[in-house]
Amino acid sequence: MDRDYQKLDQFSLPKGFRGRSALVVQLWWLTQSTFFSMSPQFTYKWRSFLLRCFGAKIGKGVIIRPSVRVTYPWKLTIGDFSWVGDNAELYTLGEIEIGSNVVISQKSYLCAATHDYTKETFDMVDKKITIEDEVWLAADVYIAPGITVKKGTLVGARSSVFNDLPAGMICVGSPAKPVKARV
Amino acid sequence: MDRDYQKLDQFSLPKGFRGRSALVVQLWWLTQSTFFSMSPQFTYKWRSFLLRCFGAKIGKGVIIRPSVRVTYPWKLTIGDFSWVGDNAELYTLGEIEIGSNVVISQKSYLCAATHDYTKETFDMVDKKITIEDEVWLAADVYIAPGITVKKGTLVGARSSVFNDLPAGMICVGSPAKPVKARV
Amino acid sequence: MDRDYQKLDQFSLPKGFRGRSALVVQLWWLTQSTFFSMSPQFTYKWRSFLLRCFGAKIGKGVIIRPSVRVTYPWKLTIGDFSWVGDNAELYTLGEIEIGSNVVISQKSYLCAATHDYTKETFDMVDKKITIEDEVWLAADVYIAPGITVKKGTLVGARSSVFNDLPAGMICVGSPAKPVKARV
Repeated sequence: MDRDYQKLDQFSLPKGFRGRSALVVQLWWLTQSTFFSMSPQFTYKWRSFLLRCFGAKIGKGVIIRPSVRVTYPWKLTIGDFSWVGDNAELYTLGEIEIGSNVVISQKSYLCAATHDYTKETFDMVDKKITIEDEVWLAADVYIAPGITVKKGTLVGARSSVFNDLPAGMICVGSPAKPVKARV
Repeated sequence: MDRDYQKLDQFSLPKGFRGRSALVVQLWWLTQSTFFSMSPQFTYKWRSFLLRCFGAKIGKGVIIRPSVRVTYPWKLTIGDFSWVGDNAELYTLGEIEIGSNVVISQKSYLCAATHDYTKETFDMVDKKITIEDEVWLAADVYIAPGITVKKGTLVGARSSVFNDLPAGMICVGSPAKPVKARV
Repeated sequence: MDRDYQKLDQFSLPKGFRGRSALVVQLWWLTQSTFFSMSPQFTYKWRSFLLRCFGAKIGKGVIIRPSVRVTYPWKLTIGDFSWVGDNAELYTLGEIEIGSNVVISQKSYLCAATHDYTKETFDMVDKKITIEDEVWLAADVYIAPGITVKKGTLVGARSSVFNDLPAGMICVGSPAKPVKARV
């Protein structure tokens, strides 16, 4: 039987999904492609300032590299002294909450939305991601929609996280699993 | 025994491999780095137009983000209403044929060529990739040279596809394997 | 017990870690974002020249694409006739030594430093990476800090290398393991 799975001409974003008007979204896109991404590496306060201008809650001493991409800053919360590395992406279609003293290493991707693939209309579904204090996501880690990583846990380079991770563990692989305590 | 595996000074592209002159390749490169990649996100028709100018066959209602990279547009075919997400790459050294209502999510990489590693001359070999209608490649999926993904199949985020995938399945992992029917 | 794992306000780079003054680092960053990354693809000699100006040891006939990123060129050595593909990154916080006739394919990431996660000060630790002659790292391969890949070995696309690899083998997976001899 030749059935249908997804009909993308029937897709539309839920009303108010972006959380801001199309104009603000466009303004942020322009800001990110210029003042943000072209700023010298050491101007960390400048980039935190730009994100705050667009509604992000960013603590003190936060280190965000110029090549980081944030989709909607108004859905982003970061505590104090956290780092976000080169070419990391915070895909904040849903909310992303990052604690204090967190390291999100280079190329990591936090994906806070998915699609309902059981519907032909392929509806967008946002799912909040929470990264607690003192977590280290090493290089090129993927965090799936809806995931929580608890305090102090280390996720090894290139791992993909499809299940919540407990506190104080070292976790690796795809799907990432705890392998030993972090001491 | 100290043997040789690859001698790259002996490498050369097969005559006519690119499918267009070096001048056209260079013009496309220039177009992609400027008019294409710097265009505002909502100008989807503009980017489809640019790709068509360089020989791509692109259907109606196709959504291609500015950060998408296409190596040789003249080796690309896309049906109607398909999406290609941010930082996805269509490495069309060989042909890539994408159906209608297909979603290629962000960071996915479709690699339509490889090298013959059994020869010191490291010959380039192109292998066509086919993605049938209503397939969803989720975030950061890798498609190896020569692969076909059949109608309606969903490939989970971060999966790597080294074997052809059947229709109407959910497939995950590396190498990606069918785990259940898509319903 | 609520213990501490990492306190990033206590972090500092070891004295002299970068190997050059902050000014030179900044100059390289500026050079890479402009003259290097915006140069046309075929100007391979120009990019090798720029890297050598900043202390890299680069052999003859080396092919480095404009989208390649090198953190500190003065910690990079490349032999003759080697290739580094699009969007590959040589994260030379520690030394990276690449032999002759080596292929580093597109999107590969060589990560020559890590952090001591057992210390709250999260100390930076550099670890030299060595890629011997005639190795092929295929697309999107990750090389962990401290790794050596021996002569002629092929690492399959999307693999992650966390252990040293022997000579003349085909290795795949995560962690990458030898599966057969390269003939």
